[in-house]
Amino acid sequence: MPRTRSALPSPVGPVRLTPDARTALRPAAATIGAGFWHERRTTNARVSLPQGPDLLESAGNLHNLRLAAGTAEGEFRGAYPFVDTDVYKWLEAASWQLAQEDDEALAAEVDRIVALVAAAQQPDGYLNTWFQLVKGGERYQDLRWGHELYCAGHLIQAAVAHHRATGRPELLDVARKFADHLDSVFGLPGSGKPLDGIDGHPEVETALVELYRETGERRYLNLAGYFVDRHGHGLLGGEAYCQDRVPLREATDVEGHAVRQLYLLAAAADLAAETGEAELRSTGERLWRAMTTTKTHLTGGLGAHHDKEDFGDPYELPNERAYCETCAAIASVQWSWRLALLTGEARYSDLIERTLFNGFLAGVSLDGERWLYVNPLQVRDGHTDTGGDQSARRTRWFRCACCPPNVMRLLASLQHYLASSDEQGLQIHQFVTGTYGTDQVRVRAETDYPWHGTIAFTVEETPADSPWTLSLRIPQWCREFRVRCGEETYDFPVDDGWLRLSRTWTPGDRVVLELVLEPRLTAADPRVDAVRGCVAIERGPLVHCLEQADHPGGGLDDIVLDPSRPLAVKHRPDLLGGVTTVVAAGRRRRIPDRGWWPYPTASGSDPEPDGEPVELTAVPYPVWANREDGSMRVWLPTS
Amino acid sequence: MPRTRSALPSPVGPVRLTPDARTALRPAAATIGAGFWHERRTTNARVSLPQGPDLLESAGNLHNLRLAAGTAEGEFRGAYPFVDTDVYKWLEAASWQLAQEDDEALAAEVDRIVALVAAAQQPDGYLNTWFQLVKGGERYQDLRWGHELYCAGHLIQAAVAHHRATGRPELLDVARKFADHLDSVFGLPGSGKPLDGIDGHPEVETALVELYRETGERRYLNLAGYFVDRHGHGLLGGEAYCQDRVPLREATDVEGHAVRQLYLLAAAADLAAETGEAELRSTGERLWRAMTTTKTHLTGGLGAHHDKEDFGDPYELPNERAYCETCAAIASVQWSWRLALLTGEARYSDLIERTLFNGFLAGVSLDGERWLYVNPLQVRDGHTDTGGDQSARRTRWFRCACCPPNVMRLLASLQHYLASSDEQGLQIHQFVTGTYGTDQVRVRAETDYPWHGTIAFTVEETPADSPWTLSLRIPQWCREFRVRCGEETYDFPVDDGWLRLSRTWTPGDRVVLELVLEPRLTAADPRVDAVRGCVAIERGPLVHCLEQADHPGGGLDDIVLDPSRPLAVKHRPDLLGGVTTVVAAGRRRRIPDRGWWPYPTASGSDPEPDGEPVELTAVPYPVWANREDGSMRVWLPTS
Repeated sequence: MPRTRSALPSPVGPVRLTPDARTALRPAAATIGAGFWHERRTTNARVSLPQGPDLLESAGNLHNLRLAAGTAEGEFRGAYPFVDTDVYKWLEAASWQLAQEDDEALAAEVDRIVALVAAAQQPDGYLNTWFQLVKGGERYQDLRWGHELYCAGHLIQAAVAHHRATGRPELLDVARKFADHLDSVFGLPGSGKPLDGIDGHPEVETALVELYRETGERRYLNLAGYFVDRHGHGLLGGEAYCQDRVPLREATDVEGHAVRQLYLLAAAADLAAETGEAELRSTGERLWRAMTTTKTHLTGGLGAHHDKEDFGDPYELPNERAYCETCAAIASVQWSWRLALLTGEARYSDLIERTLFNGFLAGVSLDGERWLYVNPLQVRDGHTDTGGDQSARRTRWFRCACCPPNVMRLLASLQHYLASSDEQGLQIHQFVTGTYGTDQVRVRAETDYPWHGTIAFTVEETPADSPWTLSLRIPQWCREFRVRCGEETYDFPVDDGWLRLSRTWTPGDRVVLELVLEPRLTAADPRVDAVRGCVAIERGPLVHCLEQADHPGGGLDDIVLDPSRPLAVKHRPDLLGGVTTVVAAGRRRRIPDRGWWPYPTASGSDPEPDGEPVELTAVPYPVWANREDGSMRVWLPTS
Repeated sequence: MPRTRSALPSPVGPVRLTPDARTALRPAAATIGAGFWHERRTTNARVSLPQGPDLLESAGNLHNLRLAAGTAEGEFRGAYPFVDTDVYKWLEAASWQLAQEDDEALAAEVDRIVALVAAAQQPDGYLNTWFQLVKGGERYQDLRWGHELYCAGHLIQAAVAHHRATGRPELLDVARKFADHLDSVFGLPGSGKPLDGIDGHPEVETALVELYRETGERRYLNLAGYFVDRHGHGLLGGEAYCQDRVPLREATDVEGHAVRQLYLLAAAADLAAETGEAELRSTGERLWRAMTTTKTHLTGGLGAHHDKEDFGDPYELPNERAYCETCAAIASVQWSWRLALLTGEARYSDLIERTLFNGFLAGVSLDGERWLYVNPLQVRDGHTDTGGDQSARRTRWFRCACCPPNVMRLLASLQHYLASSDEQGLQIHQFVTGTYGTDQVRVRAETDYPWHGTIAFTVEETPADSPWTLSLRIPQWCREFRVRCGEETYDFPVDDGWLRLSRTWTPGDRVVLELVLEPRLTAADPRVDAVRGCVAIERGPLVHCLEQADHPGGGLDDIVLDPSRPLAVKHRPDLLGGVTTVVAAGRRRRIPDRGWWPYPTASGSDPEPDGEPVELTAVPYPVWANREDGSMRVWLPTS
């Protein structure tokens, strides 16, 4: 369609593709004006983000920057060499927020902290307070664990966000100087660069692509490509943990530390987009499928092991010890979005939707003040929490505080993951009340999704007499939908997840999509041993769970759901800020006392008595753990 | 019965109760002359034990002792402050071995290493090479992690074993000097001792009781009591990991690091035995029942979490991520044996049997050269092992090499856990080919247990005209047994696990016990989520498992057992040194490809096709992982 004028300003967010990028789709603009995500984003903007600087101050992160700048005295504070990234991620989040809404107080805090960062940078561009203060400046001696390039990566991402949002150069200058320094240090043997190395924690790779996009400086893209290529050659000892066991293009499965794997894969997708490399693209498609088929929890959560934060084996998807780090959910959204743009396929946004609503959003409390680092699918009766960062209980802040500012930055840039465009028109990936658009078209949407399934679109701006296609993602979970254009109901075919409505549009045209939101029982592949004989309750994109608070009079571990009885929907404006619950029929088993040994002969036991009927109330997983501590279950036995 | 003469020498082993000890039973002597355990103990004596000094040399443990003694130069080697204990546990194992059999080469090695230990001791009795060499001698600054008293404990146990076995004083002198030093340092506030503290890893407590038993010095018993009492008062920050969350007498469940909990409980049982304290005894009984009812794997393995080596929550008993540290199995045997002696109840030896045959013995390979630190109940198809100490693959030695010498010391002292006596007579807890006896009676036993269920006892020595009771433990797993005395078959009642045969015996009297060894399918308490819908195959005391090696043509994760078809027994002299396998009928599922998302709607999926029939061969769990690497399963789905 011909270019006319800017119906909606071009999006300010991550993944700003260059004009040369070879992707099926390009990000389109969107705004979120009301509804589910608006509420959570408002809490992010009003509570979580403003509290950031105080938390970074009391945890010592800002103090470390002042120490490195020589403007304060004392000892380095914090337990990890990557504590600077908490600051950078907060700066990135605050920048995306400022791109949407003027906020003088927030802008002043950003200015202040940007100045702290700039002052801590060393003359040659290097910046890492841990190594400057604790390690006597001994750089790049411990790439396996030092996180120096990881820190550089988050600094670069913050700087790009700050520049895109404010147009100001201060932080971008710091980032470029650091990137130039890295480019002078790292390279292949024979390149004349002193070091051939990679960081144990990928992140700098995707950041460098973004810096290339922001500055047009191709050296940064090449450096990103070098780092991606050098993983898997044993430079760090060959561990899967560090993404160093196998070269990425030869990998057949996701492995090792989940966040590291996912950040590396996001970078590979960025490179495939900007270079057009087919092998890197097919690597991403292959590994994404391996991940979703065998290593993804129902919530979209990723990572089966607490130990080494590892993906685990195929179909190893434990409930109570699911790791499902909040950061892994965020990284999964970032990677899937890049694949969605590369390929144009709806499935990537299916996973994004599931992850956003469940594995990601559970990471922050309704009040925006307490966090989960790990996101289990079960907390047992009698659970004794060992505390610490990996607790199944919400925590005000963490010693390793990677997740909270990561949540803040995704919430503050969420509108960037909702829509795309191509030559044919506009694709709507996620449903919100707000607007979607390009420089030529604007569509308004109203919905109470995910509580209700109706989404009403109104075309507000459109080129006259020029047909284009409005594509709506029909979610993978959806078994039945209706769509009306004006007064007519159409039975459109769904093309691999996309409902494509092609016509010459007129301002005021309305399209109403109705996704039927019946609650449903979900099973699992039989190889998922952890949930054999169980079902989960879902409704729309939401996974539901039982919480102890709704089931007094006993625990949850002896509850059985009756799958033959209908599920009922009950909207509860009183509960947890207003949620739709699913009510199911179940019973509480009466388990006979078999003495000291809990393993009876299979055939020899008496039949179990019926047990007491219990009405089960399943609340959406993203709002769990917002009341008193207690047990929780996603997967429920059926017999 | 009146004392006559020594029918069997009094036992040389751990838990040599003082005459004042208030227990229901006292350890009786036993020898193991042939059969299952004899073979494994022969490998221990001929392969594992003799290789110890070389392994300790190449890992640096002996080098560290020479450094501390000032007779060598170089750097401390090893990653942990407790590497000395590997030496001590080897010395203990070698001492128990020397108590049974003359072995000049082994005795010479013991002499050499005892001298190294003695030379490394500081003048005031302190000894820990890590603190002496790495920490500049800064003692007791880090009781939470320093393991100084833990090391003292293993030194003391080695010294007691060495003294009991050889009668020689060298190592006992070292241990006493260290214990005296500890007694001068640690005590309650107001006691005049400089430090009120405990070690993060219990072990010194049970060792001090044993030192009291060996020396008669009551100060050691008191110091053990002080350490036990001071756990749970927050001296180490109150963590369950360090057994510091709750005072032991108030605990309602086992918790925290499994080995630490179990060593502490062994000490509590020792104290209850020697002091007669009822509260400490009932604490042990209560916690043992909590452990077996809700936190014990079918193999007797303990510890559900890799992270913090923690017991986990009630009924949290994962398969592939079962921790089940070999040391925890050993500690469980030690604790249960003390409770068996305290109470006289058979259930404690039921758990010992199950643990010895499964969760413990799997820790060492058939060739005695390779080890498992963790003992999972499943290795998945497509398992990618991350290596290291906590690998699911056998390893030659570990960075943290606590398990191998611990296995050696239990195998070398195994005969000490087989029999007991009281005023009424002799109790036989475990069945071996060999002799059991006291200073008055001797009974010979012949059996091919656990491959066959017949155990033939012959009374060899007995007081004339003085009746006494031969008590045989009827294992908890046993549903049917027969017993013959001479030509008659009797239908004796079983008294809480004991079959009690009381009469006036004559030398040559025979008792033949036949335990019916039908293979069986075992289920689990329905709260054990990890094995819902599964059964395990057992036969006698042995848990069985499927290994990949016996099931070519596919993996194990899609195999289903048909519980309606009979189980068959097949003795396989060719396999794994000769084992009895159980053959079952099953099938390999044909799991439809459901696309990228493995969670279908529960009611909407097509019925699964039948799948291909497979004959399942279940080998005993203690011999798993002695062939090529592959998948393994204990629990098998039935539909």
